[in-house]
Order: sequence, then structure tokens, then C-alpha cells
Amino acid sequence: MSSVADQPLADAVQAASHPYYPRDASLPHYVASQFNMSESLTTLGSAILLIAFISVILISKARTPLSTKDKLIVIWMLVCAGIHIVLEGYFSFNHATLAGKQTVLADLWREYAHSDSRYLTSDPFTVIMEGITAVFDGAFAVVTAYGILADSPIRYSAQLITSLAQLYGDVIYMATNYMEGFKYTNPHPLYFYGYFVFMNLPWIVIPTVLMVDAVKNIYRGMLIAQRATAVKKSS
Amino acid sequence: MSSVADQPLADAVQAASHPYYPRDASLPHYVASQFNMSESLTTLGSAILLIAFISVILISKARTPLSTKDKLIVIWMLVCAGIHIVLEGYFSFNHATLAGKQTVLADLWREYAHSDSRYLTSDPFTVIMEGITAVFDGAFAVVTAYGILADSPIRYSAQLITSLAQLYGDVIYMATNYMEGFKYTNPHPLYFYGYFVFMNLPWIVIPTVLMVDAVKNIYRGMLIAQRATAVKKSS
Repeated sequence: MSSVADQPLADAVQAASHPYYPRDASLPHYVASQFNMSESLTTLGSAILLIAFISVILISKARTPLSTKDKLIVIWMLVCAGIHIVLEGYFSFNHATLAGKQTVLADLWREYAHSDSRYLTSDPFTVIMEGITAVFDGAFAVVTAYGILADSPIRYSAQLITSLAQLYGDVIYMATNYMEGFKYTNPHPLYFYGYFVFMNLPWIVIPTVLMVDAVKNIYRGMLIAQRATAVKKSS
Repeated sequence: MSSVADQPLADAVQAASHPYYPRDASLPHYVASQFNMSESLTTLGSAILLIAFISVILISKARTPLSTKDKLIVIWMLVCAGIHIVLEGYFSFNHATLAGKQTVLADLWREYAHSDSRYLTSDPFTVIMEGITAVFDGAFAVVTAYGILADSPIRYSAQLITSLAQLYGDVIYMATNYMEGFKYTNPHPLYFYGYFVFMNLPWIVIPTVLMVDAVKNIYRGMLIAQRATAVKKSS
């Protein structure tokens, strides 16, 4: 009988051994970070700046001169590709052991997980969605940047595919947490607003804008193509 | 003490009160169907045939004569729109009470739920994904059919958006159940293959084919537009 009666106590001790929400989430493999958080964030920031720098070099070598809008989209797509492939790819491969891993990337995920513990518990939806984001969204973000730099007709299809995939994944991701009363999120404003809202909202807003942009441009292009073909047929 | 010790027994009694998997899924509001299943399936089949019939009439009134491929895509998109908006829309609005509702549509969901009990337990991912499918995929399926019938330049964008959204939703849907060892699915071949595999695989295969078709056609159109614009500029 005692083992049954002691279960709530054992649960509470277990819960107290990690800082995540819900407090009773099962994270037996959790080990606190051995790095300084500011070092990890500096590494992430430097990596993003490096990608932006490479983007600027690539933009200067573009096939035709780019508009400011297109320059910004190249930088956005390459930064996205880096985040999708490296950071989210790392999560996809290591989700089962992430809570206890001592690497800079695991450290970043342990920090972000304050805003969503599903990243440390191998939550099925989160693992599948991140796998798709890493491989599919990552690849098409690169194709979009290539399409702009090379002035290729693939550009707007790739922009539409990347943006819709990002939007779809992020909407389900945010909405499932909302539907469960944000139970995976530490309610502290830093974690709720600073991490959960602020780090996800850009992948709702920007993909929506870029989808509309792609649809408009494809519409215009297909209309020109339709007329050009009609002229050819009639002449 | 007795209340704690009796819990497993109470769970077993509860589990026995519905036919779904996992056997211990909590479905306190479950009420068995009062309809004859063959009647419900006849209703569904008739509704799909009616949509196909309406599609054939619309095809005969298309702005330009359609290829066999385009005729099939119109029928596919309008049947999809019907399923998304009516059947999946009904689920989205009534998921919380579906297990006990006595309507033909609830009956169809109770039958399908043998292959996936998440449809009766208000599973957050399933509810959100179905909401998106009903509203977003449903609307864009109609736009695609319209685009083909009216020979509009919106057609391939709409086809790409509809198909990618269908594919993304269905891949996560099937993959999460796979990752959890198909625990939501009755292992009987009728339910596993007949329902879970056979009723979902079309929304993996056909959207993939239609995405490739859309990307190819947009590529061709954008190339023609690019050349037409270049000719105009140089002349």
C-alpha cells in the first residue's frame, strides 16, 4: 500500500528536479546547463550575423540588381535556412536526449523550453513538425534565396511553398499550446512574451506577407504568360 | 485507501464502455450510434456522387474546353471542398460533444474514430488541424476549381496552396499516430488499413502530384512572362 500512497510525494520530488512547465512534466534525463547562457546566446547571435554577412556578399553577386525588398527576402530566407537546418535539425536528431546533453545547441533548446517544455519531452507533434521544418522548409528557403539571386522562374513557387509550410507549422504549434491553456509555458513574461510570443510571431507575420507577395506576383506572371500564348496562337 | 486501490478497476469498467483504442481512452460522453452504419455510408456516398455530378455540369460550362486532367482536378477539388467544409467543419464545431451526438455526421465520425480515437477526445492537434483544413483548405479547393473553370491566372497558386496544406496536415496527422505506435488505432485490418491508411493515403499521394504539377506550370508561365517582359523592355 505504501508505494501507491507515496506516489504523489515521489511525483512532487520528481517535478522539483527541473524548472519546466507543467511542473509535473516527466524529464528524468534533465541535467542543468553547464554553460553560461549569455555565451550560448552570443554564439547564436554571431551565427545569425555571419549568415546575414554571407547573404550580403551573395546579394552583391546577384544575376540582376535586386530591389531592397528582394535583398531583405534573401537575408530572411538564408537566416531561416540556417535556423531550420542547424538549430531545428539538431533538435530533430537529438530530441530524445536533448534535456541532458551538454552542447551549445542543447543549451539553447533547454533555455527556449522554458517557454515550451514539449521540446524536452519528445512530444510527437513537435518532433514531426520540427523534422518537416528542418528538411522541407530549410531546403525550400535555400531554393527561394537561389531563385532571387539567379532571377529564376522557380522563385515565387519556392517562396510560396516555404512561407506556407512555415505558417502552417507555426500556427498549429502556437494554437495547440493555446488550446491546452499554455500549460507547457512558464507564465513569467520573459518566457511567455519574450520567448513564446516574440520568437514565434515573426514566423506567422512574415510568411503571411511573403505568401501574399508570391500569389500576387504569380498571378501577374501567369496573366502575362496567358496573353503572350494567346497572341502567339492568334498570330 | 480503498478509493485509490479501486482506481484501476474503475478505469477498466470505464474503458469497457466504448470500443475505441487506446482501450483506456477517457470517453465519458460516448453513446453508441442509433443509426444503421450502412445508411450513414450511403448518405456519404450519395453526397460525394452529388458533388461529382454538379462538378460535371460546371465542367460543361467551363470558359474554355478542359483537358481530361483538368476535369479530374475540378472534380477532386470540389469533392475535397465538400469533405473539408461539411464533414471536417462539422467535426471542428462539435468535437467536444461528438462522441455522444445522434446525427448522421457524428455517426460517420464515430465509425472513422475506430481508426483514430483522437477524433472523439478533442485531441488538440487534431482539432486545430481539422479547423485549418475545413476553413483554409476548403476555401482554396473552391478557388482552385473556380480557377480552372474560369481559366484564371489564380489557378496554379490556389492548386499549390490547397495541395501543400492538405499534404502538411495529413503528414503530421499520420506521422504522430505512427510515432505513438498507432495507439489510437484499432489494429483490426478493416480499421488500420481500410480506414486509417486507405482513407488518408489519397491526401498524401494526390496533393504531392498536384504540387509538382502546379510548380511545373508556374515555372513555365513565369519563364514565358520573364521573356515577354524582356522583349518588351528591349523593343
